[in-house]
Amino acid sequence: MGSSHGRLFRVTTFGESHGPAVGVVVDGCPPRLPLALEDIQLELDRRRPGQSALVSPRGEPDRVEILSGVEGGVTLGTPIALLVRNQDARAGDYEELRDKFRPSHADYTTQAKYGVRAGGGGGRASARETVGRVAAGAIARKVLAAAAGVEIVAWVERVHEVEAAVDAAAVTRAAVESSAVRCPDAAAAARMIARIDEARRDGDSVGGVIGAVARRVPAGLGEPVFDKLEADLAKAMLSLPAARGFEIGSGFAGTRMTGSQHNDPFYDAGGVVRTRTNHSGGVQGGIANGEDVVIRVAFKPTATILRPQATVDVHGKDTVIAPRGRHDPCVLPRAVPIVEAMMALVLCDHYLRQRGQCGG
Amino acid sequence: MGSSHGRLFRVTTFGESHGPAVGVVVDGCPPRLPLALEDIQLELDRRRPGQSALVSPRGEPDRVEILSGVEGGVTLGTPIALLVRNQDARAGDYEELRDKFRPSHADYTTQAKYGVRAGGGGGRASARETVGRVAAGAIARKVLAAAAGVEIVAWVERVHEVEAAVDAAAVTRAAVESSAVRCPDAAAAARMIARIDEARRDGDSVGGVIGAVARRVPAGLGEPVFDKLEADLAKAMLSLPAARGFEIGSGFAGTRMTGSQHNDPFYDAGGVVRTRTNHSGGVQGGIANGEDVVIRVAFKPTATILRPQATVDVHGKDTVIAPRGRHDPCVLPRAVPIVEAMMALVLCDHYLRQRGQCGG
Amino acid sequence: MGSSHGRLFRVTTFGESHGPAVGVVVDGCPPRLPLALEDIQLELDRRRPGQSALVSPRGEPDRVEILSGVEGGVTLGTPIALLVRNQDARAGDYEELRDKFRPSHADYTTQAKYGVRAGGGGGRASARETVGRVAAGAIARKVLAAAAGVEIVAWVERVHEVEAAVDAAAVTRAAVESSAVRCPDAAAAARMIARIDEARRDGDSVGGVIGAVARRVPAGLGEPVFDKLEADLAKAMLSLPAARGFEIGSGFAGTRMTGSQHNDPFYDAGGVVRTRTNHSGGVQGGIANGEDVVIRVAFKPTATILRPQATVDVHGKDTVIAPRGRHDPCVLPRAVPIVEAMMALVLCDHYLRQRGQCGG
Amino acid sequence: MGSSHGRLFRVTTFGESHGPAVGVVVDGCPPRLPLALEDIQLELDRRRPGQSALVSPRGEPDRVEILSGVEGGVTLGTPIALLVRNQDARAGDYEELRDKFRPSHADYTTQAKYGVRAGGGGGRASARETVGRVAAGAIARKVLAAAAGVEIVAWVERVHEVEAAVDAAAVTRAAVESSAVRCPDAAAAARMIARIDEARRDGDSVGGVIGAVARRVPAGLGEPVFDKLEADLAKAMLSLPAARGFEIGSGFAGTRMTGSQHNDPFYDAGGVVRTRTNHSGGVQGGIANGEDVVIRVAFKPTATILRPQATVDVHGKDTVIAPRGRHDPCVLPRAVPIVEAMMALVLCDHYLRQRGQCGG
Repeated sequence: MGSSHGRLFRVTTFGESHGPAVGVVVDGCPPRLPLALEDIQLELDRRRPGQSALVSPRGEPDRVEILSGVEGGVTLGTPIALLVRNQDARAGDYEELRDKFRPSHADYTTQAKYGVRAGGGGGRASARETVGRVAAGAIARKVLAAAAGVEIVAWVERVHEVEAAVDAAAVTRAAVESSAVRCPDAAAAARMIARIDEARRDGDSVGGVIGAVARRVPAGLGEPVFDKLEADLAKAMLSLPAARGFEIGSGFAGTRMTGSQHNDPFYDAGGVVRTRTNHSGGVQGGIANGEDVVIRVAFKPTATILRPQATVDVHGKDTVIAPRGRHDPCVLPRAVPIVEAMMALVLCDHYLRQRGQCGG
Repeated sequence: MGSSHGRLFRVTTFGESHGPAVGVVVDGCPPRLPLALEDIQLELDRRRPGQSALVSPRGEPDRVEILSGVEGGVTLGTPIALLVRNQDARAGDYEELRDKFRPSHADYTTQAKYGVRAGGGGGRASARETVGRVAAGAIARKVLAAAAGVEIVAWVERVHEVEAAVDAAAVTRAAVESSAVRCPDAAAAARMIARIDEARRDGDSVGGVIGAVARRVPAGLGEPVFDKLEADLAKAMLSLPAARGFEIGSGFAGTRMTGSQHNDPFYDAGGVVRTRTNHSGGVQGGIANGEDVVIRVAFKPTATILRPQATVDVHGKDTVIAPRGRHDPCVLPRAVPIVEAMMALVLCDHYLRQRGQCGG
Repeated sequence: MGSSHGRLFRVTTFGESHGPAVGVVVDGCPPRLPLALEDIQLELDRRRPGQSALVSPRGEPDRVEILSGVEGGVTLGTPIALLVRNQDARAGDYEELRDKFRPSHADYTTQAKYGVRAGGGGGRASARETVGRVAAGAIARKVLAAAAGVEIVAWVERVHEVEAAVDAAAVTRAAVESSAVRCPDAAAAARMIARIDEARRDGDSVGGVIGAVARRVPAGLGEPVFDKLEADLAKAMLSLPAARGFEIGSGFAGTRMTGSQHNDPFYDAGGVVRTRTNHSGGVQGGIANGEDVVIRVAFKPTATILRPQATVDVHGKDTVIAPRGRHDPCVLPRAVPIVEAMMALVLCDHYLRQRGQCGG
Repeated sequence: MGSSHGRLFRVTTFGESHGPAVGVVVDGCPPRLPLALEDIQLELDRRRPGQSALVSPRGEPDRVEILSGVEGGVTLGTPIALLVRNQDARAGDYEELRDKFRPSHADYTTQAKYGVRAGGGGGRASARETVGRVAAGAIARKVLAAAAGVEIVAWVERVHEVEAAVDAAAVTRAAVESSAVRCPDAAAAARMIARIDEARRDGDSVGGVIGAVARRVPAGLGEPVFDKLEADLAKAMLSLPAARGFEIGSGFAGTRMTGSQHNDPFYDAGGVVRTRTNHSGGVQGGIANGEDVVIRVAFKPTATILRPQATVDVHGKDTVIAPRGRHDPCVLPRAVPIVEAMMALVLCDHYLRQRGQCGG
């Protein structure tokens, strides 16, 4: 009972990892928005497994079908349903998993919550669930781009201990896509790839940090006090599989500054109010101030590793689980389009809410 | 249009910092819960300004009145409205603020959003808004304690560069309350107080980190995929004034571990499934696993400082704003009960949601 | 857990009939709307008991206080909290009611639902709860009037068997207010008053039908498929105490027409599309078409009568309940401003939703 | 932005009449509920066109596919997505409709709202949209039956002027299904069929009234003050295509009774509190009292008639629209399973809400 996101731009995802299909319904998309299948497919292709040696080898073409809400290349204002069939579902790979809880996966908690769980793989807890998010996010991006020229770019900022130097104000999507690891700092990207390969060879996994920026976000977006812009961004990011932390602007590092260092002075930039620094990450008092919205998200190392691990079985008895199945030693490269999608969903919903209450 | 929190335990706060009153309506509280005025007043007293030399000198007795929903010492199942009158509102102190935007406050963004703002002080962006949250949180705590013995404790973990050593598994409320700065590590507490005093003398401010734990959270709470427990906790925390970051469990530090180090092995603890480590912070796949839920929240240094600052006026022209008004050089001690309240609101809502969908 | 109404214009009422106060919080009101205390008080005065010999003699001045969200005569865009203290609460009148369930009141069902209920009177089931609705409705009317010149008029159309002849297209508020019974047909009004007096003398009660019209509703309001305009109007009306039926346009009578009689032909009214008839009641496919929105609401005879009645006590044993307490033999005159308020709440919410999704 | 229904049992429908598919996502269904494809198909077969000479000849097999949320014959607690492909979509039939607004259809209002509309047929305003409702309703019925043995039966009570005599307390589904017109009064059914045939021969259409009952609804369901049980039922019914009125219990007729006639006396029915009459229709103060919940819904005559009609074109100019396309002279027989489905959706959502707030 938590598979919907947004108040006016309302997204509902569905689908188990090893069921017949995954997908999404988007209710509340503005009408008359030009929208082509390719707009959505493009983002899904970025998210899809099997793109490179770096990520999960699961072979899924992930061809999306538009079931409703679009006609003649434009949105109708009615619900847009998008469907992706699962093809490379291998329930057989997961037989042992019916009897044993994988450590730090959702197996045990899903059982504790529902008293039942999908037999094959992670069900809804699989990264496969994010197909619907990315598809919906592609639509949200179109709305934001059409309305205000908003541009969203995410990148891999750190893998384990390998840190990139990325200028959030300048980084481009092309630069991000230029490396398989989606890090725009070429030297760091090479070292990240090496680190991920090392983890693969070890049967181990690594996590890291993704950075993201949204540019040209209209000043005024955000709904205090509970639906502040950074609050909804934090929720969106922490709803992603493996996400463990969130920062906006100066984040945790900013707590080591004093107020006189941290405050962002306003100035008159030729008739536009700007700030000289952006420690606020584009949001003040929960409302966008027109500067770049800059966030960072921490992703833990993937729970799936190719090593025997102590655990319990479904009867609660101690046992050992053997390594098995497909292995994706680092989710970060594929998480880049997903982070962008979630950022788009949040901003689009807030854009419509602001237009509703305040008239635009 | 964002002043409500929760789906079943539905909290709506109201009130400007310098208006007649602040308060909250709680809709959805279970009936027949014993609830006394003192339960609420106790938490408000912890939040209230003027408790010590460390915090804002604003003199507010913050006496709460129950307007509805409670009779004969028990809840009726109907909306509980709680009211606190503002008494020490000094609009006069804020006259310059009508004309100039304070850096890193919500003045500019509020004007950009609504085209109007409360004349005195920060309006809804003031910490005064959290009165309603704390009052509602006191009720949520009662629900959780009655239902499952849930216990919530928060503490100041770091002020600027002064870090405390706190054992989340063992820390008590008594230990937290034993120091004015609400840090249970006495040695660190002394240094934190000194650091805050230094900031005050400098007319400057400092931020830091608050840690919090919820114990005995029933396994099963959390609503994937968008309303995962950590997602709603992140949103709740980032909705607090000055919050800039959130972590659950291993958080950002966990991104420097490998999967084999990070995974929490399950074991049979005498018929109960437990984990040997708790890097997951009590949540796996967005659902509580029965271990302690452990989070950390980053608070930036307070935006109010007693120094002249460059800014713009309401016409967008460059100017300088003079120091003025009351000054609270560090919000963290008062933020402790607020973090606890938000944690209680999230857990209580998820407790009722789980009972609704899954029967308890 | 159902005391809120609306998605963008979000209204939450609180308060028991015999508790300290009743009131409402309105979240999502557009900013910069001129709003005076008198705008709200005016509508409350129309709703309030004791206005004439026709209605409940309970003496409540019902003076409203604005606690937040308004400053300098305009709305701030933040939650508007409105408070009315109860003064003539006489719990003593209701002592027998603690032990016996009044027939066709909410006493038994409230006990069945919550396992507890307010000791005095009907708690939330009392007509007193509508104070908050009327106060919020006064704000909604201002929003609608400012945005589109929307005008809402309701009237008493029938009391028991006394039916008025009212032209929905032409009736004015002045005509409605010209009689104590709020019926604009003077001859019928006189007979209605006589009928109500007869019921009072009999210790009995009567019901009837209220008609209402909203003029200049912008074409396009309404959110298919579940939140069609007539669906939300029906819900709003059936949420009123004693409401038992709802019609829009031709309603039940229209089911006795054929399609060729019932269809409303469109025509070109000098550049504006109009319909020659308005059997649709201003709504087609759940969306306003620009014609008058016309509805009718059935109110059952009041459950409180001054006669002994068979019932059961709180232990489920057969007993007789004696007549006692204040007696309002016909709620319809006071329901007129309440129906108007609910109509305003629905239309205002849909106005903001349409602006949010479709841009106005 | 209104295609979702329910707070805990959350249903979202999608699909245009002449697009690729229609369907629904159900989020919040309790886990471990036995659910077979046939449970859903059975209800869809009752709704589907082409069942008899009485209804639309559109040939749609309406085979449903379960895309997610069910495995091994039980629900998983995750979103259940259901898909039905459109097969007999004939956009060509509707070419004239691109240029002219059909009277009393949603063509004009859809255009006014969204500025665009589906080219073929009624888009979302078509009865075809109700496929998703009926599919979701089949699941809700299973939840209610498993939880409390709730049984829902609807029937055609009147067609134009032909009225049936039906005992709501005793009517069975078998009796309803025994006639093509779904009227359990065989004599009236024969006359209804004749009346519908007459309308067909005339190229005209007729409306009528559907009655429905829910038995064994647990006392306590309903969420005052805005989400009273009858309020949500009214909304659900008025959200149906062609619905124009709603009554619960005595409805409009009850307004012609006095309070002493109308009140339902309680009595001790062997340890259970019952009422001697049921003018309240099973709901008092917005909360179920354990008696049968009895409602009636008015459906206008279908807007599609096979006669030339005056209207305007998309440029707002006067014109005449020629008869064309498939013609369903009376929607009532097919509306019976749809009314049942909506009743199930409302009751199921309230069942889960009550369990959430009050524990069952």
